[in-house]
Amino acid sequence: MKLYDYPAGPNPRRVRIYLAEKGIDAPLVTVDLMKREQKAPEFLEKNPIGSIPVLELDDGTCISESVAICRYFEELHPEPPLFGRTPLERATIEMWLRRVELNFMMPVGMVWIHGHPLTARLVKQIPEAAEQNRKRVHLGYKLFDDQLATSEFVAGPDYTVVDAVLLASLDFANGLVGVPYDDGLTHLKRWHESVSSRPSAEA
Amino acid sequence: MKLYDYPAGPNPRRVRIYLAEKGIDAPLVTVDLMKREQKAPEFLEKNPIGSIPVLELDDGTCISESVAICRYFEELHPEPPLFGRTPLERATIEMWLRRVELNFMMPVGMVWIHGHPLTARLVKQIPEAAEQNRKRVHLGYKLFDDQLATSEFVAGPDYTVVDAVLLASLDFANGLVGVPYDDGLTHLKRWHESVSSRPSAEA
Repeated sequence: MKLYDYPAGPNPRRVRIYLAEKGIDAPLVTVDLMKREQKAPEFLEKNPIGSIPVLELDDGTCISESVAICRYFEELHPEPPLFGRTPLERATIEMWLRRVELNFMMPVGMVWIHGHPLTARLVKQIPEAAEQNRKRVHLGYKLFDDQLATSEFVAGPDYTVVDAVLLASLDFANGLVGVPYDDGLTHLKRWHESVSSRPSAEA
Repeated sequence: MKLYDYPAGPNPRRVRIYLAEKGIDAPLVTVDLMKREQKAPEFLEKNPIGSIPVLELDDGTCISESVAICRYFEELHPEPPLFGRTPLERATIEMWLRRVELNFMMPVGMVWIHGHPLTARLVKQIPEAAEQNRKRVHLGYKLFDDQLATSEFVAGPDYTVVDAVLLASLDFANGLVGVPYDDGLTHLKRWHESVSSRPSAEA
């Protein structure tokens, strides 16, 4: 088994945080995104999307997409449960995973692609799209802050895969992408400090 | 239990197709998107994103996001399995769900929002964003066509929730959004005809 990884990538970090919370070791293989190794023909055979993380099993089967990889490990190692126990918990976690992805990470990615100097050589940037999506990132922060006003973790009273996914996405947005959340979002800030203080955040 | 629905919406249709495949009846309540009822304060209490579908349980608990609703029903009614049986099947289905969402439905939504006359009054449209995303929609079609060259259904030999989700998304893209797939994508076409001929496609 090999986990194709890149230290600074937000999506591989989701999996590393998740694995740290589960206490699972997986051998990492670095794919150098700066050299565009994820778009090389031999890597496209592992994942036609040309993105990481990718988990390659011993028989050569490849699973891509961060949450799919986490779910694979969850099925093999159900304890501690990070995808919920009951039908309602499992659905609630799925709901929040999708909100993080579609209402937050997607606009973060658009700001990154259309507004950051590092990506300018890769795409024809549309500054107005970066600006619109910057506003959507802040709507995402507000959504999480509202939820965290009455919930210890994003999907309820327990730490779940949603917290791992949001932490990696939020640190990317706050850092490299340059769209930090407002200090007034005290519930989000409380959560951010709490999950950042767990050993898994080092992953 | 109530399922908040809108007949012409692609995301509620995902759930209706899924439920038809499972043989589950759920009482539908129409939310009139043309009247923006999904953004009314009382509906935002059910789903702060202001979107449908939403499943409201008898105790008032609400689950939003199409795939989260399907997963809830799957947990309660595991047969026939539409989210996979083994860890690898479950991870593969998750991978394809995310590819449909992020590499296809997301750009379809961008073409819809930035390029369609019906949405022009709702957002400041960026025609260049519509154009860029139109190309990404076609890359998505190609991804599915390549997969369907060697696979009967999108995630493998059996019909799964991925097929329900892709059918609803693809019919929306081909129809209302106006980005049909090229006739040369014969594997995608074969799949599209096959899944469209199932009774669930009427949902």
